[in-house]
Amino acid sequence: MCRWLAYSGSPLLLKEALYGPANSLIQQSLHSRLGAETTNGDGFGVGWYGAPSTPGVFHSTEPAWNDKNLHELADHISSSNFFAHIRAAIGSSVQQTNCHPFRYDRWLFMHNGYINEFAAIKRDLVLAVDPSLYPRIAGQTDSEILFFLALTFGLRDDPPAAVERAVGLVEEVASRHGIVNPFQGTIATTSGETIWAFRYSSEGKSRSLFYTTDVPTLRKLYPQRELYEEVSEDSHMVVSEPLGDIPGVWNEVPEATCRIVGRGQDEQRPFRPRTS
Amino acid sequence: MCRWLAYSGSPLLLKEALYGPANSLIQQSLHSRLGAETTNGDGFGVGWYGAPSTPGVFHSTEPAWNDKNLHELADHISSSNFFAHIRAAIGSSVQQTNCHPFRYDRWLFMHNGYINEFAAIKRDLVLAVDPSLYPRIAGQTDSEILFFLALTFGLRDDPPAAVERAVGLVEEVASRHGIVNPFQGTIATTSGETIWAFRYSSEGKSRSLFYTTDVPTLRKLYPQRELYEEVSEDSHMVVSEPLGDIPGVWNEVPEATCRIVGRGQDEQRPFRPRTS
Amino acid sequence: MCRWLAYSGSPLLLKEALYGPANSLIQQSLHSRLGAETTNGDGFGVGWYGAPSTPGVFHSTEPAWNDKNLHELADHISSSNFFAHIRAAIGSSVQQTNCHPFRYDRWLFMHNGYINEFAAIKRDLVLAVDPSLYPRIAGQTDSEILFFLALTFGLRDDPPAAVERAVGLVEEVASRHGIVNPFQGTIATTSGETIWAFRYSSEGKSRSLFYTTDVPTLRKLYPQRELYEEVSEDSHMVVSEPLGDIPGVWNEVPEATCRIVGRGQDEQRPFRPRTS
Amino acid sequence: MCRWLAYSGSPLLLKEALYGPANSLIQQSLHSRLGAETTNGDGFGVGWYGAPSTPGVFHSTEPAWNDKNLHELADHISSSNFFAHIRAAIGSSVQQTNCHPFRYDRWLFMHNGYINEFAAIKRDLVLAVDPSLYPRIAGQTDSEILFFLALTFGLRDDPPAAVERAVGLVEEVASRHGIVNPFQGTIATTSGETIWAFRYSSEGKSRSLFYTTDVPTLRKLYPQRELYEEVSEDSHMVVSEPLGDIPGVWNEVPEATCRIVGRGQDEQRPFRPRTS
Repeated sequence: MCRWLAYSGSPLLLKEALYGPANSLIQQSLHSRLGAETTNGDGFGVGWYGAPSTPGVFHSTEPAWNDKNLHELADHISSSNFFAHIRAAIGSSVQQTNCHPFRYDRWLFMHNGYINEFAAIKRDLVLAVDPSLYPRIAGQTDSEILFFLALTFGLRDDPPAAVERAVGLVEEVASRHGIVNPFQGTIATTSGETIWAFRYSSEGKSRSLFYTTDVPTLRKLYPQRELYEEVSEDSHMVVSEPLGDIPGVWNEVPEATCRIVGRGQDEQRPFRPRTS
Repeated sequence: MCRWLAYSGSPLLLKEALYGPANSLIQQSLHSRLGAETTNGDGFGVGWYGAPSTPGVFHSTEPAWNDKNLHELADHISSSNFFAHIRAAIGSSVQQTNCHPFRYDRWLFMHNGYINEFAAIKRDLVLAVDPSLYPRIAGQTDSEILFFLALTFGLRDDPPAAVERAVGLVEEVASRHGIVNPFQGTIATTSGETIWAFRYSSEGKSRSLFYTTDVPTLRKLYPQRELYEEVSEDSHMVVSEPLGDIPGVWNEVPEATCRIVGRGQDEQRPFRPRTS
Repeated sequence: MCRWLAYSGSPLLLKEALYGPANSLIQQSLHSRLGAETTNGDGFGVGWYGAPSTPGVFHSTEPAWNDKNLHELADHISSSNFFAHIRAAIGSSVQQTNCHPFRYDRWLFMHNGYINEFAAIKRDLVLAVDPSLYPRIAGQTDSEILFFLALTFGLRDDPPAAVERAVGLVEEVASRHGIVNPFQGTIATTSGETIWAFRYSSEGKSRSLFYTTDVPTLRKLYPQRELYEEVSEDSHMVVSEPLGDIPGVWNEVPEATCRIVGRGQDEQRPFRPRTS
Repeated sequence: MCRWLAYSGSPLLLKEALYGPANSLIQQSLHSRLGAETTNGDGFGVGWYGAPSTPGVFHSTEPAWNDKNLHELADHISSSNFFAHIRAAIGSSVQQTNCHPFRYDRWLFMHNGYINEFAAIKRDLVLAVDPSLYPRIAGQTDSEILFFLALTFGLRDDPPAAVERAVGLVEEVASRHGIVNPFQGTIATTSGETIWAFRYSSEGKSRSLFYTTDVPTLRKLYPQRELYEEVSEDSHMVVSEPLGDIPGVWNEVPEATCRIVGRGQDEQRPFRPRTS
């Protein structure tokens, strides 16, 4: 459906991640290698943390590959934590309010995948969103409802548990409606430091997800590569598909897994949807 | 908030209504005379009936005054029934799914005004929409929810009663939340022949609404004016504000009134919100 | 670079040509089979002849595959002569003034291909445009300059000769600058009845171009197919690539050829760039 | 036609200038007090200097008043030198390539006003642009041609002389065509430190232009105002119209004047168009 990228580490110019690599996210907007669709041209979004307490977001309905404003921003904005997402819409409109990453206070959230037969269960899912959060839902997508369910279930306190409960609810409601394989996808969320990334699908054939080898190991593997010297030891990237072909850099996140990286953290846990 | 125009009669080129008059709707997008805002530049929409069973709609997020595509369409599309709407957004996003007229099957619906403190009661109102219609809600606006409430309450069978029940529900829910003056505005709806137009506000100070004098009278008043010869005897227009200053053409719709015109109809009824 | 379609014949709903076929132009916007690029998502345009003396044009910077307004128009507009074009930009901006078909008075013009090293010779080419036409150049593209050169060289009187002189000038100027293979592409132009289509490249390896078999032959081949009964005997389509796989329908225009169809015409001539 | 703002001084968050003031530029986009038009809703642009050698630019075709991306950027970008411009188009298209500020290498340029009967003399003016610069002209506006003429005449070496020669050429060419009052407007240009601002019109009734009182004086006048303590002593703003009503802050630039501010400079010179 989509492709995304999440970075946490020492401040990095956005263009290094978005435009530089051989199979950069911008490149993937025209020709994704591993995506469900080769073209991801239905808008994009970037979210980044800077001086203010809430992250900035830039959403556009244009294909990322020829958006001049994105190019300008990527040339000028450095951040120690940023998300980027390119969209291949399936059904919902191409409009800024449907662009990821979604934001709530300090939190960003993005998703690649879908809730199966979403129209049939959307109402039930929306009803489960905390009524005080409800007015903040701005777009039409299943992904945004997932975010608001996760917020409802405590994302700000325990992200893995909250996402497990959100996906659990989706599976529970879908089951009541006789919908098979209700959830598919990968998710990333952050409040500016740690990144929580999830890979899961009800059918056990999830969209691809990769993370970078730790920097100290990369420095040993490639002592000449400047980039690995420039970024800090605790710099990490999680991506829908590898940004290049350099051996030893990209590692697949296993099925049904939550990966936690950034600010000293680098761990992996099983992901199991929870029902109430 | 907005300005609109509804036409029913013999086929008319859209540009005659949208661009021709001295105070045309396009002119009002930059300089409305009677609107709550002088600038109505947050997108626009046109809906028109032609050969297919459902009307066409054209929605754009650009200001109407410089949209070249609208100019082209207005030059080429004739219709015996069309709606046009220019938007001044208050809070909700400028996106096509928030542009009027809204469409459901053969029905069009547009609104100028607001539901007061909409965020506080949106969830309650959305819950009252028929669950089978719920997935068809596409945007964020109070106006679209009004449309879906009216559809829920039988718009397709008895438009005045359905709109009275929709507005009645808004007032009822608002009252429970202690919100004063909950509804403000004018509404038009059609399924391609008759136009139902409504003017009402809880506080009794409604947005302006005008309708044209019947064509036979206009022909007597202005025997030289070609336009009145060209259009059929049962041609009518209902507008947020007069399109010009010619005496005897424009008549104010009274407060709390439903006006029904087109296809031989030309009547006026009191409008009274109904609670269940 | 791009893909296009030109139709002349009995009135046809645009959607029959743009959305209906298996390999429709909209389909090609995401997945072109024969194009230089698979994705043609950098805007699109439609030009059609109706009641007014000048054709209507609708230009959009969105990818055609998810433009809702295009879908609406295609559902509602019938025309006996229309052009449609989807763009894959190479260098120039994605903006409406760069979208084909270009229009001048009653004339439409569209192009798939390029002028090699256009930036190096643009000034010389623009200087050759009739000064009285110069202020009407609105965009940045090589294609639009070709159109204005053709207008300068008598497009309105003798289209094949004018296009031959325009391409001849491009080759002449390029030669002075030491640019090889200066022109590549296919072109279509019309004033509402006859379509003139051109296939030519300086290197003799031109972009693909196809035309439909005459309707009487198609009716004999496929006596059951309703479409061939519905359209008039002199209906023709010229396209960048076949819209489907039905044998006997699509014929390749040879290299260096001008094909003239519509309103009783159906002929083919060699195309030879002319220098002054 | 338009309104603009130029800032040079200690790093300032863009939102302080664009959104904060009572009569901020964003406010002026809906309701300009002194502009030739009250609505400046035909796109906007921001240019700012940061770490890279060339400034960033952000151009949008949306009205500034409801562009969410501009709001996000203004919240997150600080700069010691930035330009902002809101557009009221007169004739030319609403597209990013027509949005100010224009950029060439390290230089930014913006304009409020017009070249009278531009279509009649555009070709002559464009011919005077250095052929090596010609391919970099991207849009349709008179303002961009002025910029390229000034670049041709040495903007990078002596800005006042180059702008005087550019305007001089406009007046000379216009005179040959019998066009009266050929130039109208205000201009700002910078390469990241000093700002050169110009106010001139052939008829001597130029668009409004104001500059801020020097900071040490403002501190004495308003010892309590935090903003004046925060910004450095050599901070300056030049604007189309005052951003507020505080007495002693805003000073009118006289007719036919070049004002030079920033990085220790604060001077005023007569502006006299030069012919060759």
